[in-house]
Amino acid sequence: MLSAYAGKAEQVTSDLFTRAAVPFVTGCSSIDAVAIDAWRKVGVRHFQTMDAENLRYSTPAGVPALRLEVAHYLKAARAVRCDPDDILIVSGAQQGIDISIRSLLDRGSKVWIEDPGYLPTRAALSAHGARLIPVPIDAEGLVVAEGTKRAPDAKAAYITPSHQYPTGAVMSLARRIELLDWANRSGAYIIEDDYDSEFRYSGAALPSMQGIDTQGRVIYLGTLSKVLFPGTRIGFAVVPPALRKAFAAVRFLTDRQPATLQQQIVAEFMRDGFLTSHIRRMRQRYRAARDLLVGVLLEDLDDAIDIEIPDGGIQLSIFFKNDEDDVAIAAAARQQGIVVRALSSLYVSAPQRKGLLLGFSGFEDHMLRQAAIRLGQIIRQNTA
Amino acid sequence: MLSAYAGKAEQVTSDLFTRAAVPFVTGCSSIDAVAIDAWRKVGVRHFQTMDAENLRYSTPAGVPALRLEVAHYLKAARAVRCDPDDILIVSGAQQGIDISIRSLLDRGSKVWIEDPGYLPTRAALSAHGARLIPVPIDAEGLVVAEGTKRAPDAKAAYITPSHQYPTGAVMSLARRIELLDWANRSGAYIIEDDYDSEFRYSGAALPSMQGIDTQGRVIYLGTLSKVLFPGTRIGFAVVPPALRKAFAAVRFLTDRQPATLQQQIVAEFMRDGFLTSHIRRMRQRYRAARDLLVGVLLEDLDDAIDIEIPDGGIQLSIFFKNDEDDVAIAAAARQQGIVVRALSSLYVSAPQRKGLLLGFSGFEDHMLRQAAIRLGQIIRQNTA
Repeated sequence: MLSAYAGKAEQVTSDLFTRAAVPFVTGCSSIDAVAIDAWRKVGVRHFQTMDAENLRYSTPAGVPALRLEVAHYLKAARAVRCDPDDILIVSGAQQGIDISIRSLLDRGSKVWIEDPGYLPTRAALSAHGARLIPVPIDAEGLVVAEGTKRAPDAKAAYITPSHQYPTGAVMSLARRIELLDWANRSGAYIIEDDYDSEFRYSGAALPSMQGIDTQGRVIYLGTLSKVLFPGTRIGFAVVPPALRKAFAAVRFLTDRQPATLQQQIVAEFMRDGFLTSHIRRMRQRYRAARDLLVGVLLEDLDDAIDIEIPDGGIQLSIFFKNDEDDVAIAAAARQQGIVVRALSSLYVSAPQRKGLLLGFSGFEDHMLRQAAIRLGQIIRQNTA
Repeated sequence: MLSAYAGKAEQVTSDLFTRAAVPFVTGCSSIDAVAIDAWRKVGVRHFQTMDAENLRYSTPAGVPALRLEVAHYLKAARAVRCDPDDILIVSGAQQGIDISIRSLLDRGSKVWIEDPGYLPTRAALSAHGARLIPVPIDAEGLVVAEGTKRAPDAKAAYITPSHQYPTGAVMSLARRIELLDWANRSGAYIIEDDYDSEFRYSGAALPSMQGIDTQGRVIYLGTLSKVLFPGTRIGFAVVPPALRKAFAAVRFLTDRQPATLQQQIVAEFMRDGFLTSHIRRMRQRYRAARDLLVGVLLEDLDDAIDIEIPDGGIQLSIFFKNDEDDVAIAAAARQQGIVVRALSSLYVSAPQRKGLLLGFSGFEDHMLRQAAIRLGQIIRQNTA
């Protein structure tokens, strides 16, 4: 007999495992020759100069060198208020979410989730036994007033304010202040997942929510999986001082500490400036990929779909003008090796817009173009 | 407000964080020049020859190359019945324990634990809200008859049969069969933590429990933290086929997948035969360390303490003949920078033997000798 957690986990993760790097899987990374050379250079140097100290146990929060680099980076790039001591190195957004859930929520605790929203978080919360309170998204992001109406007593809210998943909405400053006010009044925590804000193509990104939190209500989560390489498994949580000890304790029971090896290599990679230059190159590349994808799709389908062209991020949504069955179209595409996610599958109860979520990062131009043409044909066949 | 899990985690982990490599912290590793050279050689080669494929997402269970090496190794060294498909790569024993707990136990589920036993497991179980059923240990290991008397309906048993922590008892074949019979009859699972059986100084080790399990009741956990380097964060769970999907799902929600980088480097390290030769060298070294420690302690204290000289493993227990207060002696030692664990702190309810648990691996001879002399003086002062 499995635990209730495992039973639920089996059920909710069944379609989340696919990580093939084929269009239009979201969150893929381009790994160009420049990045490989830099990674190789740092890695070889690390191994040539390392000693036994690099191989011992370290601390649950992560090695100091990496926490220092991450703190510098987050202050500069995302206006996160943090010192190295506030940083907990984790193995990616998923572990940051898991540790946050286990630290803050009990079975039956209410938690606001974005509707539509990110499935792996919803899966982790529902396996944990939390009571999910879906809160709709509009052009200004989370509709906080709906949240306070539906569950003023929730213990936490999980949000992606910089670039909402999947709608791409940027949460307005007014809504951010409204959400923080609620958290301050009610004692709730805000889990801010800032998963892809590094890629901004026009205008300036709003700074993180964490940066305007003065009461220690925000847990900020980030990852290098998208911005650098997924296989690296380095992410970070910025944890308010009052929660630091609990998060470290939960982390210790979960898996003791992060691996020393890639923490050190990533710290050296960042210190040498390779992360910054990588992001700069990828921003250009992903912007070009976005434009290519939009161009191909609109050429043939402008009477059938609407596209919201995102100012940032590495995925976009297309919407069916005639409300066609997006699940059926996604299934038809998958049969031809094209992976898209039906937008309707990301909703809990908010009024759905039918369409598809397409990741456009991490693919060669010709793959992207070919897949876009093929997808256009599939959509055309299914919207005739 | 923290979750109940986090509140408990803070409480139960407060004295578990220390991982300084000072005598007599348990589970330290000697990292000699030969090992560093081998690790460096494999690491440099890896970085020189790697390509983008090495940096992408892989699968929750781990990269095939490492699962293959681990399966070979466990079959040969520990008579574990396994194919690469049965292996789940984890970040160490702690994550193996955590995933097992979350997969098998609910809040309130009964679980047998060894009394005395390993604190981090007890901490993880009690934070999870499991009902801990302490089962005493004698010279043949777990007293299974006590377990079946106290909680025949337990859902799992956590055991260290090869070299019980902390007593060093090797579970007899009769007891192993008795335990498996109970599990087969009742549908319970056995979590076998085989944390240090590689280091055997005389006689042959009994094969793993998993190797005599024909019904898929045993989850086998191992780690390279002790046998190789702790910072590597590579461990493994061998999971019965019926549980494989659930364990992978729980793993996915926990932290998605293990890091690709060190999985590949460790796989190459094992394939080149470096792990086997490392274990051979360390076995000699740790045996000599054991003999040195026993020699120094007995020289001065043979009227005050008993030592059970272990046939294997990397720690030993000394017992106070006059039942002195081991907690007070451990505290006095710590004030002088010597870390020992009072045996009585590892008991739940079984009749206690007062004494100290000393790790002897991973220290230079002169450090070990000096610390042993100093500890002898402290014990002498406190048992006068």
